[in-house]
Amino acid sequence: MSSLTAVYPGTFDPITNGHVDIIGRARRHFPHVVVALSQNPSKAPLFSKEERLAMAKEAVSGLPGVEVDAFEGLLVDYLARRGAAVLVKGLRAIGDFDYELQMAQMNHRMSGVETFFMVANPLYSFLSSSIVKEVARFGRDVEGLVPPEVARRLKERFRAE
Amino acid sequence: MSSLTAVYPGTFDPITNGHVDIIGRARRHFPHVVVALSQNPSKAPLFSKEERLAMAKEAVSGLPGVEVDAFEGLLVDYLARRGAAVLVKGLRAIGDFDYELQMAQMNHRMSGVETFFMVANPLYSFLSSSIVKEVARFGRDVEGLVPPEVARRLKERFRAE
Amino acid sequence: MSSLTAVYPGTFDPITNGHVDIIGRARRHFPHVVVALSQNPSKAPLFSKEERLAMAKEAVSGLPGVEVDAFEGLLVDYLARRGAAVLVKGLRAIGDFDYELQMAQMNHRMSGVETFFMVANPLYSFLSSSIVKEVARFGRDVEGLVPPEVARRLKERFRAE
Amino acid sequence: MSSLTAVYPGTFDPITNGHVDIIGRARRHFPHVVVALSQNPSKAPLFSKEERLAMAKEAVSGLPGVEVDAFEGLLVDYLARRGAAVLVKGLRAIGDFDYELQMAQMNHRMSGVETFFMVANPLYSFLSSSIVKEVARFGRDVEGLVPPEVARRLKERFRAE
Amino acid sequence: MSSLTAVYPGTFDPITNGHVDIIGRARRHFPHVVVALSQNPSKAPLFSKEERLAMAKEAVSGLPGVEVDAFEGLLVDYLARRGAAVLVKGLRAIGDFDYELQMAQMNHRMSGVETFFMVANPLYSFLSSSIVKEVARFGRDVEGLVPPEVARRLKERFRAE
Amino acid sequence: MSSLTAVYPGTFDPITNGHVDIIGRARRHFPHVVVALSQNPSKAPLFSKEERLAMAKEAVSGLPGVEVDAFEGLLVDYLARRGAAVLVKGLRAIGDFDYELQMAQMNHRMSGVETFFMVANPLYSFLSSSIVKEVARFGRDVEGLVPPEVARRLKERFRAE
Repeated sequence: MSSLTAVYPGTFDPITNGHVDIIGRARRHFPHVVVALSQNPSKAPLFSKEERLAMAKEAVSGLPGVEVDAFEGLLVDYLARRGAAVLVKGLRAIGDFDYELQMAQMNHRMSGVETFFMVANPLYSFLSSSIVKEVARFGRDVEGLVPPEVARRLKERFRAE
Repeated sequence: MSSLTAVYPGTFDPITNGHVDIIGRARRHFPHVVVALSQNPSKAPLFSKEERLAMAKEAVSGLPGVEVDAFEGLLVDYLARRGAAVLVKGLRAIGDFDYELQMAQMNHRMSGVETFFMVANPLYSFLSSSIVKEVARFGRDVEGLVPPEVARRLKERFRAE
Repeated sequence: MSSLTAVYPGTFDPITNGHVDIIGRARRHFPHVVVALSQNPSKAPLFSKEERLAMAKEAVSGLPGVEVDAFEGLLVDYLARRGAAVLVKGLRAIGDFDYELQMAQMNHRMSGVETFFMVANPLYSFLSSSIVKEVARFGRDVEGLVPPEVARRLKERFRAE
Repeated sequence: MSSLTAVYPGTFDPITNGHVDIIGRARRHFPHVVVALSQNPSKAPLFSKEERLAMAKEAVSGLPGVEVDAFEGLLVDYLARRGAAVLVKGLRAIGDFDYELQMAQMNHRMSGVETFFMVANPLYSFLSSSIVKEVARFGRDVEGLVPPEVARRLKERFRAE
Repeated sequence: MSSLTAVYPGTFDPITNGHVDIIGRARRHFPHVVVALSQNPSKAPLFSKEERLAMAKEAVSGLPGVEVDAFEGLLVDYLARRGAAVLVKGLRAIGDFDYELQMAQMNHRMSGVETFFMVANPLYSFLSSSIVKEVARFGRDVEGLVPPEVARRLKERFRAE
Repeated sequence: MSSLTAVYPGTFDPITNGHVDIIGRARRHFPHVVVALSQNPSKAPLFSKEERLAMAKEAVSGLPGVEVDAFEGLLVDYLARRGAAVLVKGLRAIGDFDYELQMAQMNHRMSGVETFFMVANPLYSFLSSSIVKEVARFGRDVEGLVPPEVARRLKERFRAE
């Protein structure tokens, strides 16, 4: 039996057009794609879990077969609970490659979960949630980099500061 | 509709246990996997196309849903002829990463073909067809690195030299 | 006194839109940019020196202050003859980074020539002369990747094969 | 019109001989070089902004055409205020390469600012502000790695601890 | 005279089977190997210095000629106190390579200390103290990744949380 | 028993000051260092085996305990014949790192041979036999990059062309 569900994990603080591009492309090859928000315990997010969920849901609302969810604990345990055996990840550049490769090997060893890496769209190869926040923080426009709802919330958040 | 066929391209000169591992893992997620032998015009192979096909077929004979084929021309054209939209590739290390990333972006731009990169099994992370040939050339045992039939042919080939 | 002339070296076999993008951007910062065609002794080019010169000249004909030239011998000697002290190079990814870094340090040690590396436009980050030739060889369209005159010549060249 | 001003940004906590080398080399090609101190919000500096400014000014006092300044906010906005369109950065090794490449593409997209990367002098390729601080913290001599005034202040700072 | 003592530095929070593999291999080539625990000032360890020492001692108890020690201050000063001139380090992947290379050049410049890098056993190439802790934190088994005593303490530690 | 003999393999076409630096540093830690010239079957050397041997011997003539030898066949078989279990290799940058790491893992798997990687002296980090030949080919001085006898032979060789 082929894999029906692919999980796309991340902190999505916030979701960018680069993420949305990967989600849409993954969806073409898997009937069901779950965007799975995790907590990154090592740094405080800019947006709360609820805000990040709302923005991600809005961003993929036009993509049937895509679900947005949040999880805690070990990623492979979340996949087991969902009956999924496939992770998809976007690769922009080699920066995080070693860590991602180690995690993929570890996840496979622990539960047989397979990670499929997809290359970023060249248009978004320089794009990350961190860079988007840095640009928005100083009042710059992030149109074309994030979904409209995310742009609105970033503007609102940094106006308040 | 989800992707039914994944193509795993390479020169397979010869096929190694690292290749077989990737094929088996890809097969768990795609109903049909095509091992697609290409010619590498820039260097003369050790084994003829017929020999490489025979060894690859032997190596995957126990894996239902896996087919071995050869092609000429552009890889994306071969995928179009086969009605496939997915490539799978193994990543051992970052050595060839840039070239692979460029080809994946180019293939996607030309035909929408998606490349899914899978990480090598740590056991085979140091393994390549080139290293296997170098070791076998000097009469060393390659058991555990390649399928038995490949080991036999390598021994035969280099005894003759 | 600031640097008036920047030299952009390469084999340009053929020139691509990625090269033209770098040339235009370099020209914004240097009054005079010399596109300097070299021979790559280690591999036979697809196009002759005359053809490569003609295509490069055509491609930059709309850019005042840009000159196309060919040279033999050591690059730093060519710069000395031209009274130039600056090289510009495009960086797409880390693949060739080590070699480029070594050459830049060596050129600086030999003659004080400075190399300025510019990052590729994300749109062209996957583009190289080699990939363009591979795509054109099999009758595929290369529009948007190379200047129109180059596309015409590639089609002509591979039709003849 | 060619570029008259190049901005060399950093935290300079403290300035090292590797920085001074890049500044001197950049100055040979741009009539005006601005050493632009930024705050790194993610970590507390060892030296205050005033101390870092003083050390940088002392270090470049013999280089006409070099100015030291501090800025807050987005780097591209600072360049706009200064009427500059060029950044220079030193590359020691590939460690930060991905991040630098992403920032350079983002800066170019936002304002057309061009980043020119220069390779470190081999003599200073292993040198960073962090390593200098780690060495000085334990009472080791940093002569030859930083300007004399910086060495003096480091000794003073860590004696006090 | 050849080198009699090699120092293997790290935080060992906790020691893994990958570390033990490097220690055993280093011991084959140096009569005396010192496992030297350091504090990593930038992050709080999971285990106290005493716990980390106890686990490391237990892990190498079967290896004659291996000593476990802790140190503070600069690593090269510790080597001088021990009369050692050799460091050994394991390389899993290129992730930390730049930093390690810079530290090795700096240590050599400061005291002539030589660093010998050894490649990780492929079996443990994906293994790090961080990944082990992440896996154990969620109640997963870490058998085969760490010595039994470490597995026991991890289980105990995280049960208490 | 500690390792008495370390083998430093390469094509040495020709030997450079970067090689000599590594040899001298290795010799400080191993009583006996063997510089082992191999043939690189994939490219024709500039100098014959006899010339490369002569230049290497001349370059290390002042270093007691260093021997120069040539070998054919598999490197691990050569080590077995010599009763050696240690290889030393210099790492300049990450360019060849993946290949070197794979070979080191393969050599260890085949015969338990251990590879110790040493980082290049920053002064020679940009130096390679290839770059030296390219510079000398065009009549440039290579003093300070290679031993005097090598400089003399390079001049002689390229004058004849």
